[in-house]
Amino acid sequence: MADEKIVLAHGGGGTLTRGLIEKVIIPALGGDAGGLPDAAPVPGTAGLVLTTDSFVVKPLEFKGGDIGSLSVHGTVNDLAVSGAEPLALSMGLIIEEGLDIEVLRRVLVSAAAAARVCGVRIITGDTKVVARGEADQLFVNTAGVGVRRITSDPRGLKPGDCVLINGPIADHGVAVMSQREGIDFRTTVESDSAPVWPFVRALIEVGVEVHAMRDPTRGGVAACCVEMAEGSGVTVELDEGALPVRRQVRAACEMLGLDPLTVANEGKIIAFIPEKDSARALEAFRKIPSGENAAIIGRVVERRRFPASMKTCLGGERIVEMPYGEELPRIC
Amino acid sequence: MADEKIVLAHGGGGTLTRGLIEKVIIPALGGDAGGLPDAAPVPGTAGLVLTTDSFVVKPLEFKGGDIGSLSVHGTVNDLAVSGAEPLALSMGLIIEEGLDIEVLRRVLVSAAAAARVCGVRIITGDTKVVARGEADQLFVNTAGVGVRRITSDPRGLKPGDCVLINGPIADHGVAVMSQREGIDFRTTVESDSAPVWPFVRALIEVGVEVHAMRDPTRGGVAACCVEMAEGSGVTVELDEGALPVRRQVRAACEMLGLDPLTVANEGKIIAFIPEKDSARALEAFRKIPSGENAAIIGRVVERRRFPASMKTCLGGERIVEMPYGEELPRIC
Repeated sequence: MADEKIVLAHGGGGTLTRGLIEKVIIPALGGDAGGLPDAAPVPGTAGLVLTTDSFVVKPLEFKGGDIGSLSVHGTVNDLAVSGAEPLALSMGLIIEEGLDIEVLRRVLVSAAAAARVCGVRIITGDTKVVARGEADQLFVNTAGVGVRRITSDPRGLKPGDCVLINGPIADHGVAVMSQREGIDFRTTVESDSAPVWPFVRALIEVGVEVHAMRDPTRGGVAACCVEMAEGSGVTVELDEGALPVRRQVRAACEMLGLDPLTVANEGKIIAFIPEKDSARALEAFRKIPSGENAAIIGRVVERRRFPASMKTCLGGERIVEMPYGEELPRIC
Repeated sequence: MADEKIVLAHGGGGTLTRGLIEKVIIPALGGDAGGLPDAAPVPGTAGLVLTTDSFVVKPLEFKGGDIGSLSVHGTVNDLAVSGAEPLALSMGLIIEEGLDIEVLRRVLVSAAAAARVCGVRIITGDTKVVARGEADQLFVNTAGVGVRRITSDPRGLKPGDCVLINGPIADHGVAVMSQREGIDFRTTVESDSAPVWPFVRALIEVGVEVHAMRDPTRGGVAACCVEMAEGSGVTVELDEGALPVRRQVRAACEMLGLDPLTVANEGKIIAFIPEKDSARALEAFRKIPSGENAAIIGRVVERRRFPASMKTCLGGERIVEMPYGEELPRIC
């Protein structure tokens, strides 16, 4: 990669992102192939986990959320799907000269409100300002510390597992894109930005066996399933008919030429649960107000030719591919 | 502040930065006046501390360091001066489209090397890419978790305390500025970017009483002393003759019209030590290879009219003021 440059698609959460992380970032940092997980145990502590996420979403405010609430949800969700209950957050701001202080205030108030709902506090922060044209309004980094309550291994998928999701997909990506492009879909699509810890806690409380969990953010359900299936040496078979997608979101995706499977979510969790426990897990998800449309959307089978596939509504089968690059830039 | 906009000076580490943090950011986040310290205890843990810093230094590589090593040192130093031994770091990258992958690789290798020296590992990360003109090459956020080994209260200054520093000031700011402006000062000035934990550990090992510690980064020794003196209700009297400044750094500051007292450091620690223990603390500092020029640069007295002043070499006395805004943008 001697003369190679970063391209926008390196940030899309797909094949190019993985290549950059696995071939450049992890080796440079001296880590092994299992290095730099979304959330990692802190050495020298009893079950503490650390995670980080930077947010560059554009526009800063969108239907159903803003960069403030998103930066809280994104990070507490990385903790939650690693099985950790969030304890505290840090927040680093990179502000472009010229930002309205009122906008800054609004997104911070929103972040604090989101943190309260998540039962977590923003305890430390940092503020940097760069000149006009050196950033785009506001970038936010949040890091989070949590304490592990349940083991969740992203490579823990086993044949026979059911694939659960806690609600309809692709809302976040479609909400941000339609706002950015000024497209009006009649019925408003709102981001699903929300904490998923209540769903993890519900799984713990009903005592089901959990093999793996993940939040399907950048790259959507497709990237999530392909990556986890590859890491576990299995194949995930999705069932298109079972996949919850709101009508207006499906219409918007058709109009924008997007596959809902690859569109980002910010309040969704995918859990891989052994079949024996899957009905109880689904029931637990559905008891949570925002989980009423939870569904079993597929199952894990022995490894076939491709890591993920989907039975279509028309009775066929299609390969589910890792999105290559940046279909939706600056979505989170 | 209804129609107010962010200006570059909001990022300078001086009066405007404090105003933004105390009047906008902390109230919006729902914190009190003591809110958002550089490093804060994580609720629900035994002595763990969390901190965060974003780095926007320009250029990415400079004499004596780069954004990679700086992002490690900056964060482990925030932990160290809070009395915490660093345990682990997270690293969030915001990359501008077009960045040379080779440059990215170099600064990450440098970050990993710095982390090894600090005895800490980068355990989790995040990568975002934005389009050309939406950032400036590379911004890095690091968050750090440490475990508290000694109490250090930034408001803990007491009359009678000696003010110790572990070496000459203003190297970092001058190194970055001269590189950025292409100014050659004959003898090269190198950044002092380095971990200060060895100095904190030395104070713990010799068992001296420590009232407060701080790393004089943005805003330099001046901002550090003014802020801590104000918070503690005392006055800090510095002694210009005792202040270690390298000859070429002094010359560069004169040429650039800078006051070394307000220029950023990235490997310096200021410790406030009761007089009875100050000689032992100084000796401990000087035993560390990079601490051979450590010095007692002033003392704490009862509050006078101004929070900080300096006896000049000419026998006069001058007020030490908090720098107002951005003398040196994007220095860290």
